[in-house]
Amino acid sequence: MSLLVVGSVALDSVETPFGRREDVLGGSATYFSTAASFFGPVRLVATVGEDFPEEHVRFLAERGVDLAGLERRAGRTFRWKGRYEFDLNTAHTLETQLNVFGDFQPALPAAYRDSQYVFLGNIDPDLQRRVLDQVEAPRFVACDTMNFWIGSKRQSLLETLRRVDMLFVNDAEARQLAGEHVFAASAYPLASLFDPTGAGDSFAGGFMGYLARAGREEPDVLRRAIVMGSVLASFAVEQFSLDRLASLGHDEIRARYGEFRQLAHFDELEPDLFDGRGR
Amino acid sequence: MSLLVVGSVALDSVETPFGRREDVLGGSATYFSTAASFFGPVRLVATVGEDFPEEHVRFLAERGVDLAGLERRAGRTFRWKGRYEFDLNTAHTLETQLNVFGDFQPALPAAYRDSQYVFLGNIDPDLQRRVLDQVEAPRFVACDTMNFWIGSKRQSLLETLRRVDMLFVNDAEARQLAGEHVFAASAYPLASLFDPTGAGDSFAGGFMGYLARAGREEPDVLRRAIVMGSVLASFAVEQFSLDRLASLGHDEIRARYGEFRQLAHFDELEPDLFDGRGR
Repeated sequence: MSLLVVGSVALDSVETPFGRREDVLGGSATYFSTAASFFGPVRLVATVGEDFPEEHVRFLAERGVDLAGLERRAGRTFRWKGRYEFDLNTAHTLETQLNVFGDFQPALPAAYRDSQYVFLGNIDPDLQRRVLDQVEAPRFVACDTMNFWIGSKRQSLLETLRRVDMLFVNDAEARQLAGEHVFAASAYPLASLFDPTGAGDSFAGGFMGYLARAGREEPDVLRRAIVMGSVLASFAVEQFSLDRLASLGHDEIRARYGEFRQLAHFDELEPDLFDGRGR
Repeated sequence: MSLLVVGSVALDSVETPFGRREDVLGGSATYFSTAASFFGPVRLVATVGEDFPEEHVRFLAERGVDLAGLERRAGRTFRWKGRYEFDLNTAHTLETQLNVFGDFQPALPAAYRDSQYVFLGNIDPDLQRRVLDQVEAPRFVACDTMNFWIGSKRQSLLETLRRVDMLFVNDAEARQLAGEHVFAASAYPLASLFDPTGAGDSFAGGFMGYLARAGREEPDVLRRAIVMGSVLASFAVEQFSLDRLASLGHDEIRARYGEFRQLAHFDELEPDLFDGRGR
């Protein structure tokens, strides 16, 4: 079914303990749509500058990402520069150049208006609602946000959330939003973590891509979608930028999903475990 | 099968955001043996002072904990005083009075020497080895430790670990010991967390109790034992001190294990998920 993403397409400069890259392909909508592309077509709404390399446009187009909503404007592309320490949990932002992303006004091509599955990447919650206003009858809406919006545009964010079915945030953001301690659900151990950039958006892309492909939102589908999000995120972080997703195949996705299942499995208890002793 | 624990029996004073208690029953060996007692008998090695209330001795005895190794000495019982903030992850120690625990020399009664399953609670790694020296042919040895021993008695701890099958530590301790980033495995969301004291030892008790009852260490048993550890820990933290474990029944253990299974379950992928599209 039709899946729409709005977010950033960016050029990232990233330092990790394992190396560094300059001006590589990045951005929330990029990671999302690449991860989701394994399950079906994706409609992208984003903006880039005149300096955005044509090879990246081809990369997305070849994956079946609909680029009718990719606006190319005078100016430079959004750039993010960050560093990860050995504790790869936290991105330290060294520099943000919003450039053409600074006054991004998401406009949906007419052909996008019937989208059923919608992912609102981490942008101003006012803009997130403006996107929803342009979708005729969204069936399932997921949303990302960050500490900046929770702190500075809380009321607007809450207004957006009333129209959202699922919110993707980390534990600190969940606490900040809820104003109280929040318990965390299971995560999966990663064998190999190289560059965490894009993990959350790849998770969202795997989740929404799978959901849109399944076409129903029952609990068993949502569970598989969550695991599929973890699968795509676990691949995304194995190399810089979109490199690992670019080389990824369906068989690998299926195999890792199987490993996750294997990892999470445990049997029922023996019926005679307590055999009448004690209470 | 025969299960031995060495560790502390203590009187705890605990403050959490939900209340406070003075001089309640606590200690690693107490939580461990109570949690393990659901699965079979437990042999305890610990020391208490003259002031240790007889009702606590009866509590343990009534649960089938063998107290031949509980030494009662002149002086006061080990006391720990701690506080948890709203972030219930970290215990802030306000006061530690080692008292008779300060020169604890664990001596095993002759009848304990054939123990097959051994849990070495968080004590000086020299003493942990002295306990192992007194066990004839241990089949499976698990061990707890903490940042203090990792920092101050690293060589001795490493010597102990050579004789240990399983180590229980938190993520920070694992990093400190390994000297590098360590990936964490799944945890389970807790619906209700009241007082985290004893969670780790109750986990160890549920794990080792189940393992000793099963009598074999195959991967499928170890997995169920880990979940069983989480089950016992999740109950222990619902109330102060040993209160929740004291009122716990086999049916509740079985039911929560079932909930954990339900929580962790997700199905296989559809065979036709990718149906020939893409790679």
